[in-house]
Amino acid sequence: MSFKSEAIVARGPFSEGKWAIEPVTLRDLKPDELLIEMVASGICHTDLHCGNTPDDKGVPAVFYPRVLGHEGSGYVVKVGSGVTKAKEGDPVLLSFSYCGECHVCKTGPPSHCTNFFEINFMGEPVFSDGIGGRFFGQSSLARHSVVSDKCVVNVSGLGLSRDDLKKLAPLGCGLQTGSGTIVNVAKAGPEDCVTIAGMGGVGLAAVMAAKERKCKAVIGIDRVEARLELAKSLGATHVINTTGLSMDQVTEKIKEAAEGLGSTISIDTSAYPPLLAAQIDGTRYMGKIIQVGTGMPEANISLHMQSFMVSGKQYFGAVQGHSRTEKYIPEMIQWWKDGIFPVEKLIKLFDYKDFSSAVSAMGSGEVVKPIITW
Amino acid sequence: MSFKSEAIVARGPFSEGKWAIEPVTLRDLKPDELLIEMVASGICHTDLHCGNTPDDKGVPAVFYPRVLGHEGSGYVVKVGSGVTKAKEGDPVLLSFSYCGECHVCKTGPPSHCTNFFEINFMGEPVFSDGIGGRFFGQSSLARHSVVSDKCVVNVSGLGLSRDDLKKLAPLGCGLQTGSGTIVNVAKAGPEDCVTIAGMGGVGLAAVMAAKERKCKAVIGIDRVEARLELAKSLGATHVINTTGLSMDQVTEKIKEAAEGLGSTISIDTSAYPPLLAAQIDGTRYMGKIIQVGTGMPEANISLHMQSFMVSGKQYFGAVQGHSRTEKYIPEMIQWWKDGIFPVEKLIKLFDYKDFSSAVSAMGSGEVVKPIITW
Repeated sequence: MSFKSEAIVARGPFSEGKWAIEPVTLRDLKPDELLIEMVASGICHTDLHCGNTPDDKGVPAVFYPRVLGHEGSGYVVKVGSGVTKAKEGDPVLLSFSYCGECHVCKTGPPSHCTNFFEINFMGEPVFSDGIGGRFFGQSSLARHSVVSDKCVVNVSGLGLSRDDLKKLAPLGCGLQTGSGTIVNVAKAGPEDCVTIAGMGGVGLAAVMAAKERKCKAVIGIDRVEARLELAKSLGATHVINTTGLSMDQVTEKIKEAAEGLGSTISIDTSAYPPLLAAQIDGTRYMGKIIQVGTGMPEANISLHMQSFMVSGKQYFGAVQGHSRTEKYIPEMIQWWKDGIFPVEKLIKLFDYKDFSSAVSAMGSGEVVKPIITW
Repeated sequence: MSFKSEAIVARGPFSEGKWAIEPVTLRDLKPDELLIEMVASGICHTDLHCGNTPDDKGVPAVFYPRVLGHEGSGYVVKVGSGVTKAKEGDPVLLSFSYCGECHVCKTGPPSHCTNFFEINFMGEPVFSDGIGGRFFGQSSLARHSVVSDKCVVNVSGLGLSRDDLKKLAPLGCGLQTGSGTIVNVAKAGPEDCVTIAGMGGVGLAAVMAAKERKCKAVIGIDRVEARLELAKSLGATHVINTTGLSMDQVTEKIKEAAEGLGSTISIDTSAYPPLLAAQIDGTRYMGKIIQVGTGMPEANISLHMQSFMVSGKQYFGAVQGHSRTEKYIPEMIQWWKDGIFPVEKLIKLFDYKDFSSAVSAMGSGEVVKPIITW
């Protein structure tokens, strides 16, 4: 079909000024693909990881040129011959992709698909001149993109305006990761004391969900006071500013805030091993420690086997909050309509021409969740 | 009451010849205690840990003189004023003790009681001359002992003879730990591929339970061929002898035996960090790795945070198979009667006067589960 459009093409690291808006030509659709006109795309740290790292260091999933973006929303322009979940004109939110064939996809949460890395981080070319596409099945930093039907959630019938689609674009990654970890993974309830380290989009979505689940303590940890104030406004019952504290002091403060016993659920978005270790120590016997952030590829956590065993604590990771997106994204939209999930407090919209400001605001932490609009 | 009896008193490490049969006098019962005439007591590695370590090294839970033994069976001689669960003459099996007051005891498995260490490993004097007693609430290496009612399981009404009580003495620790991990903790079923490292009493009980639960693969790991043969006779579908293998080869063999994907459930009784790491690598996405053995107090396991998170694997420890002993021990007894749990294949009985042979046979691995009879 040779559809012509434009996209933000990364030809090297962002900080080297190598991202630019370029004209692109999209290849024809495969049977399981859709052509989407993007309305918006949230920016997430993963975009920066893949788009601000030199490609000569051997870091997995870093290559150029490519189109990033994986928190897209938009309208269907055209569907491949095998697509049944949406039709031309339908509004959609986009989320991660998966193979649908491995043992996890068949029985467990598809966000732990054994082919997740290849499918979501490597993608495949869909734009002209070998420019990498289908990042998380979508490459949504484009006015139009060819996306996998696996990542499409049809939101027609929910009464969303174009402006709504702009605000809700990040539901499909950061916000479902945070809230889904509370709701789907930890299954938190009123008896739980929840600690959440890192008050970015993921952590703040977890705070909102923990409030919605009426957890008896919701403890937010960060080193930026403004983020902690925001956490309080969203439902954190306690906050801990780590500035100037030793990790032992962080552990003590967690315990103090959690009935003197420690958290029943600890969620780590920081991926900073010393802070994770402090959270593990601040988790009570039989509590869960859930890793949802990944930091440096070489980071390890060391667990003292005997005391960890005796305590009955559980350590595991959860990707994308174990979301079954077609069910869970409409649920989050309903919370948003009900005022329980005020995403407006986290976002800032940027015109696509100003993508550079949006990405910089993400990198600096000035904005929790910048969204690029088309 | 000043009840006079005899006990195997450890006055220093076993290997220094400092265990001996001595006359002892028992103190009066507290309201929640029972005087038990022991029929038998299994020997477990924990007895050796606490009774074969010099007490001048600062190792926790090592002190002398004391009476060890924590897999006892016997008959009630007398009950304290507050005891309701048994009466004089009742046959009992003995298991671990717990506080009954902490947040875990109130809601979770009492084997993760936050006071478990103090109560079970430190105990309190019940014999004359300050000899330590109530090891795991019982100190069953004694002809008579004063035990906590928390560790008592009344088995009257199950038609057990004195000879049966001898064979079944180890149900309350090693055998419930192994089988309970399969049944209560992992909740294994026909879809599971289970790997069990270490074919001691705990590991072999896990093999029997995995067979009972019809797990599709039951993979036993050890370095002693005779143990692996025994594992096969008890239901292991595959065995891996680690002798001469690299840990990468162990991982590969686990995967081969488990549908090419790896185990869904990995149980480690070895507490040997390299073997645990091989098992973690040999566990499939979303699988559980359950630590049930503790080895060197200083052992740590290092987890690569990013890949561990992406895989969705869970690492946690489980003490005593999360057994609710009053319910679970009669269940195991029923399996034994039904021929599903052939404990006879693991045990060897030793007269108490020959305790030295029993303990040596445990230490050398010559016998899986030596039992001392009174």
